[in-house]
Amino acid sequence: MGHRLADASGPARLAAPEEGIGRDELALAARNHGLPLEALRHDITPPGLHYVLTHYDIPYVPDDTSWHLALGGQVRRPLRLSLADLRTFPQVTTRVTLECAGNGRALLTPRPVSQPWLVEAVGTAEWTGVPLRLLLAEAGIEPDAVEVVCTGADHGVERGVEQDYQRALPLDVAIGGDPEVLVAYAMNGAPLPPQHGRPLRLVVPGWYGMAHVKWLCEVTVVDEPFTGFQQAVAYRLRQHPEDEGEPVTRIAPRALLVPPGFPDFMSRARVVRPGTVTLEGRAWSGRAAVTRVEISTDAGRTWQEAGLDPGDGHRWAWRRWRHSWTAIPGEHVLSARATDADGHTQPLDQPWNRGGFANNLVQRVPVLCLDEGAAEAGQ
Amino acid sequence: MGHRLADASGPARLAAPEEGIGRDELALAARNHGLPLEALRHDITPPGLHYVLTHYDIPYVPDDTSWHLALGGQVRRPLRLSLADLRTFPQVTTRVTLECAGNGRALLTPRPVSQPWLVEAVGTAEWTGVPLRLLLAEAGIEPDAVEVVCTGADHGVERGVEQDYQRALPLDVAIGGDPEVLVAYAMNGAPLPPQHGRPLRLVVPGWYGMAHVKWLCEVTVVDEPFTGFQQAVAYRLRQHPEDEGEPVTRIAPRALLVPPGFPDFMSRARVVRPGTVTLEGRAWSGRAAVTRVEISTDAGRTWQEAGLDPGDGHRWAWRRWRHSWTAIPGEHVLSARATDADGHTQPLDQPWNRGGFANNLVQRVPVLCLDEGAAEAGQ
Repeated sequence: MGHRLADASGPARLAAPEEGIGRDELALAARNHGLPLEALRHDITPPGLHYVLTHYDIPYVPDDTSWHLALGGQVRRPLRLSLADLRTFPQVTTRVTLECAGNGRALLTPRPVSQPWLVEAVGTAEWTGVPLRLLLAEAGIEPDAVEVVCTGADHGVERGVEQDYQRALPLDVAIGGDPEVLVAYAMNGAPLPPQHGRPLRLVVPGWYGMAHVKWLCEVTVVDEPFTGFQQAVAYRLRQHPEDEGEPVTRIAPRALLVPPGFPDFMSRARVVRPGTVTLEGRAWSGRAAVTRVEISTDAGRTWQEAGLDPGDGHRWAWRRWRHSWTAIPGEHVLSARATDADGHTQPLDQPWNRGGFANNLVQRVPVLCLDEGAAEAGQ
Repeated sequence: MGHRLADASGPARLAAPEEGIGRDELALAARNHGLPLEALRHDITPPGLHYVLTHYDIPYVPDDTSWHLALGGQVRRPLRLSLADLRTFPQVTTRVTLECAGNGRALLTPRPVSQPWLVEAVGTAEWTGVPLRLLLAEAGIEPDAVEVVCTGADHGVERGVEQDYQRALPLDVAIGGDPEVLVAYAMNGAPLPPQHGRPLRLVVPGWYGMAHVKWLCEVTVVDEPFTGFQQAVAYRLRQHPEDEGEPVTRIAPRALLVPPGFPDFMSRARVVRPGTVTLEGRAWSGRAAVTRVEISTDAGRTWQEAGLDPGDGHRWAWRRWRHSWTAIPGEHVLSARATDADGHTQPLDQPWNRGGFANNLVQRVPVLCLDEGAAEAGQ
């Protein structure tokens, strides 16, 4: 019997009704992680709390000095740049909210079997690096260029296809000036942590995480659309397996709440006492600035407008919102709903596709408000 | 109908046969995270890759300067110490491997329903702080003292009991000099990250994670055994719900492998090509120094001794081991087994208790070795 790559891979599939999370999904959930939602209080996500998703292993790079970025393909002057070389280019720092394209997947019915995110695959950081447009200008783009393929050093198999992680950006995005795509070498003022792409990653403000290629080692300008696995097979919006599908691109608007009160360890149910509870959270969109956040404390029946902090010029980062709620004893379901300047708003019914991508269903946070004077039964 | 804390909590339970991971377990897995096992290559775990388990929310501490540690109870001079006060005491740095008491729980049959760790709830850091024995000496322990209760600022409910997280140490451990228990304010030379207890945590070298109280705000010397929830209800080894149970204390020996080759994204199966594969990993024990690591490449039928790096004086940290394996095409199961100086060794059959604690079953890593020349089907 032969032993082939296909033996390591199953086909894409949907979970059966009532099927629990499997060992494979759990293995992904144990190594990748989301933002603990109470950390939405921080403007910039503290180290280690930003969401992480790696398709394969985190490459081991004990020595940054031997790393090189190769720029080639349809360019006049191919480049090979060390980190020291990159630091001679102008440096830009941008505050960016990054979200995984699969955020919310595990709440879908039926559930696409993959990394089982609930709603927490998000984080905000200050990324520092060289604008990709400057590197491409230095290399000199040939006139027939249409896309820029970015290759990471992470290596693995998906559905029987052995690959380095690769994604392409349309040329106009890659050379865009607002926002600038960055070849980033620092996160919050420090070298990139291994899990965020050390020593180099792409940062594409406004786009879902799959575009921000980590462990970046090659940038190749191409004259026809890229058909690699992560472009043509994965990260497409399909209703049926045979659909060509639309590509996943920019982040749809979403608002999340800082969970109010305190949790039960196991059920993660939230508990509050009667009285005024300040609700707060963050809202973001990769399409246009968030202009409105509405709050419901009655499971989506009625909505009230929340106060929205000024964006402080950080167009590509989340905005804080607040709302005062008077909790009365009983069970409640809280939600927040973001709308952006283009009129995109979050749906109350699930948007569904086979990959569970770009789903921005409104969050539902069940809260138990205790009776007045309910005893503290602790020690 | 009344609304009480008990409404937020279910009873402890075991999963039914074939029951998948539930929404509650997934919510824990999405916010807590393990060490991606390829990061076992690092002597000291890089920031954000060390395992994290928080029972409740991570407290929000925007300003460390207002934090105080109160030492009281059966002492002659109660103390109230700021971080600045703590820095006037002698400072100790210790390299410690920390493991969650529930590591391995999700692999047990039947599976205790709780944080669903596979095997990755571990990490190693350099912790810097004041020896607890010096603080207790400063306060002056009364002669009737038996335990030291440590209280964190994290607040929540468990099985209907509202509580701040609290754990007690036996007095001899709390005032021990080898190892010294630390009141730590730095991790790897930087202030503690929020999820690791900012600004203060206990570090108890050799003990499972539940003893290392995070967000430490009170240390209380008591003259009778502490019966708080995390001591008398949780973290005990029980076969039946009504057992009193033995307390969980020191870390049992365990070895883990750096996963060889490369992974399939979804199945997490490991793939290698035929030929020499260097196997490596780490081994640790909180009971006595690890003295031996054995490797099996045939699902535990035969074992060979691995090479063990010197401990370099870091008694409370893991040790690296290596072994050379000649892979031939086919399916293999790799294991490593640690033994410590007291003769404790890892079991091949699962040790089981209702909490899934202190389980150090030998890891099994299925590996697919491809046929010679199996094509790279990637882009």
